[in-house]
Amino acid sequence: MCLSPLLVDRYDISNKIVVVTDVLRATSAMVAGLASGVTAIRPVETIEASAELRAQGYLAAAEREGQVVEGFEFGNSPAAFMRPDVKGRKIALTTTNGTRAIALVADAPLVLIGAFVNLEAIVNFLKGRTEDVLVLCSGWKGNFNLEDSLFAGAVVAGLRAVDVTHCDAGMATAMLYDQLASDLFGAIQQSSHYQRLAKMGIEEDIRFCMQRNLFSVVPMLRNGEIVL
Amino acid sequence: MCLSPLLVDRYDISNKIVVVTDVLRATSAMVAGLASGVTAIRPVETIEASAELRAQGYLAAAEREGQVVEGFEFGNSPAAFMRPDVKGRKIALTTTNGTRAIALVADAPLVLIGAFVNLEAIVNFLKGRTEDVLVLCSGWKGNFNLEDSLFAGAVVAGLRAVDVTHCDAGMATAMLYDQLASDLFGAIQQSSHYQRLAKMGIEEDIRFCMQRNLFSVVPMLRNGEIVL
Repeated sequence: MCLSPLLVDRYDISNKIVVVTDVLRATSAMVAGLASGVTAIRPVETIEASAELRAQGYLAAAEREGQVVEGFEFGNSPAAFMRPDVKGRKIALTTTNGTRAIALVADAPLVLIGAFVNLEAIVNFLKGRTEDVLVLCSGWKGNFNLEDSLFAGAVVAGLRAVDVTHCDAGMATAMLYDQLASDLFGAIQQSSHYQRLAKMGIEEDIRFCMQRNLFSVVPMLRNGEIVL
Repeated sequence: MCLSPLLVDRYDISNKIVVVTDVLRATSAMVAGLASGVTAIRPVETIEASAELRAQGYLAAAEREGQVVEGFEFGNSPAAFMRPDVKGRKIALTTTNGTRAIALVADAPLVLIGAFVNLEAIVNFLKGRTEDVLVLCSGWKGNFNLEDSLFAGAVVAGLRAVDVTHCDAGMATAMLYDQLASDLFGAIQQSSHYQRLAKMGIEEDIRFCMQRNLFSVVPMLRNGEIVL
């Protein structure tokens, strides 16, 4: 369990399944999009890289500081990733936190994309595997955030019967999830990110992202693209 | 609230009171020692620096990986810092995590040394100040640990009536503290650090460090030394 991308070098990822999460909103959007017919999502680190991929047939999406970057089709709103006109398309996406976190662990043997909207699918997938698991929280500009840590705790709680040892972050976030699981949206309304995003009028997105198990897909990184 | 020394550059400390904690055991030992008559504690980063300070009349203490470094008077056991023969002495101390964390924030206008053993004194001191506060958890080799995060949460919980805003780590650790406060020692027995340290036969130290408000002192860093 890694609470910030800045701490990921504390972990040996060469033999682990890494679950990257950026609940608000990048990985929620990826899960929703792929489950709704988007063919593939290419996470890229820069705004320029997203724009350049248009020439290869991608729709270009870019978010910074919670907002769609000017000149782009869309940002990281899950609603946009589920529009009928994106079915069958590939999307290039860069975001403030989530796509950078994915880049950091791209060399792991298996990288999964997780969010509350596919929590149970992720947990069930992991139960069927024997490798060690690292959940990487994208956080906010390198720092701890509540929503990603709660998701990580939910994964730990889901796997509790299996084996969770010697990781204080995993233990702490699982306890936090147990405490807040009955009202995730209520919990997140107290968070810093909610206060940032709510000012932008995207409360509906947040409500969407805090729902569990809307989709049963397990997106994974393959050759630089996230696919099912 | 900073959950790891590796994240401290996310924060502007130039205008903040920084409370450094390393509950197991460096800051608990510092508080216990100064409250028991140690004159000053000089935190240093290397084993060599601690040894060299003997020439200036310091007792030399060094801990690595939970154990006293060979050739040193003692490590970071609070019991050693309270021995009658250290009264009136100065101690040079280097530890795996705590003294390094102190070095990272030495330029802050005010650095306090906190642990459960002086929790209430720290909270009361902070209530009397108007500056912003950052609690820096020393963690374990850069990573999140339970005991320091719980102390940070206890400070946040203690200041709750005052003002705690826009910090997810503060909110999360305070909730965790509320959940576990009735049995801190029980909580910590599940932690990774407990499992490391208990093998070394220092359970009594841990039990000591998880007690609240044994001392009413507020140690602070002045000219490179921790004093009352």
